[in-house]
Amino acid sequence: MAAFELNEKLRADSTLVENLGLCQLRLMDDKRWPWLVLVPQRPGIEEIFDLTPLDQAMLTFETNLVGQALKKCANATKVNVGALGNIVRQLHVHVVARHENDPNWPGPIWGYGSREAYGAAEKQALMKKILESL
Amino acid sequence: MAAFELNEKLRADSTLVENLGLCQLRLMDDKRWPWLVLVPQRPGIEEIFDLTPLDQAMLTFETNLVGQALKKCANATKVNVGALGNIVRQLHVHVVARHENDPNWPGPIWGYGSREAYGAAEKQALMKKILESL
Repeated sequence: MAAFELNEKLRADSTLVENLGLCQLRLMDDKRWPWLVLVPQRPGIEEIFDLTPLDQAMLTFETNLVGQALKKCANATKVNVGALGNIVRQLHVHVVARHENDPNWPGPIWGYGSREAYGAAEKQALMKKILESL
Repeated sequence: MAAFELNEKLRADSTLVENLGLCQLRLMDDKRWPWLVLVPQRPGIEEIFDLTPLDQAMLTFETNLVGQALKKCANATKVNVGALGNIVRQLHVHVVARHENDPNWPGPIWGYGSREAYGAAEKQALMKKILESL
């Protein structure tokens, strides 16, 4: 079986926060909203239901762990979770902290406007805060 | 503890397909894309991580069962799964069959245009097909 390789667009758009048991936890470089992506380190998977049952359970556990931590550390109104993959086919799960004053509330983040990169210090501080909340 | 009551907007916008173990499986009345919603029958829950661990596992199982069935029966290019809840706060998980010629491919379905209702016969036929795929 081929080894897992992170999709090039995911690599370019995000930064590794932590390797969890199954997933790479990555921060999207978009300061409009605290936006994490979990990428199961399994080759050739596009749909959640194409994972083994054990990996599906692991993904649920890691997604919910991260969602709860992000809600708390970002003091979010709502967490949005989604697996779309229409453009980047490698399975990845978005976990996003939403606030009532964010740029597209209450609409979705997907397909809205363009990414706005963090400054380096700002990104490091957020990553540290997220790691401490896990 | 209060009993589960389905949110009024979810009730108005969708039709019950089947009661699964945890969730109501409902078809959104929008013929632009085959669009199912799973609603865990638990009162007062807004986030997936607010469910008990057992209910989280059940939701994963039911979501993936439904996603796999929908992909097959709709002959979809990709299944999109999401739990947003910025407007309707009662926890509900969207499972949507996407095709490369659908109205907003490869963009998201959320926040795009307006629902287009099925005709009665068309809706019944799709619900029957989905039920047979489960």
